[in-house]
Amino acid sequence: MSNCLFCRIASGEIKTDFVYQDDQVVAFRDINPQAPVHVLVIPRKHVASLDDVKDEDAPLLAHLMATLGRLGREMEVHGSGYRVVTNHGADAGQTVDHLHFHLLAGRPLAWPPG
Amino acid sequence: MSNCLFCRIASGEIKTDFVYQDDQVVAFRDINPQAPVHVLVIPRKHVASLDDVKDEDAPLLAHLMATLGRLGREMEVHGSGYRVVTNHGADAGQTVDHLHFHLLAGRPLAWPPG
Repeated sequence: MSNCLFCRIASGEIKTDFVYQDDQVVAFRDINPQAPVHVLVIPRKHVASLDDVKDEDAPLLAHLMATLGRLGREMEVHGSGYRVVTNHGADAGQTVDHLHFHLLAGRPLAWPPG
Repeated sequence: MSNCLFCRIASGEIKTDFVYQDDQVVAFRDINPQAPVHVLVIPRKHVASLDDVKDEDAPLLAHLMATLGRLGREMEVHGSGYRVVTNHGADAGQTVDHLHFHLLAGRPLAWPPG
């Protein structure tokens, strides 16, 4: 058993409705949504953050990006756009040490991004 | 000659101080910085957004992510963290139709991210 919340979600140990899943990634709604569409996309494999990406993870990262693009197309409201965000460390507000990308859409998103 | 601002920056047609460059990507400071560290990382190849990523671009995307992670490590202030953001479309405020990732650091970054 892992102590990592997102590993436990990805493995199904914590039951979660997946917006999308395949053998490499899962996507689910943020428990504290900041926009009408707010989905997290994470690798099943435990990678702590962009800091901890290894060369061997290249195909996984590419697949994560492609999944974000595809979900963005599918979930954006009125074709109006979406934002993808990932945080590393305290200043950025990373709260779970498992690489995750926020996909936000459905309202105008202000600048700066936080 | 391209009409794309970021293609012209990447090619050197518009002279720009690069924070980092290699054969696939370039990184430079945002002209309108929103944090003490605010760098854009873009592929040299013209890719309009995450929507337009093709399978053949997988190694490029992986390299972009790895570069963001490395620059994040190098440029973050006091090891305090960084945020990576990419925008697609009007709601998200995408202003240049060439895939680019914002790397922000050096101050606490609020939530929601815009």
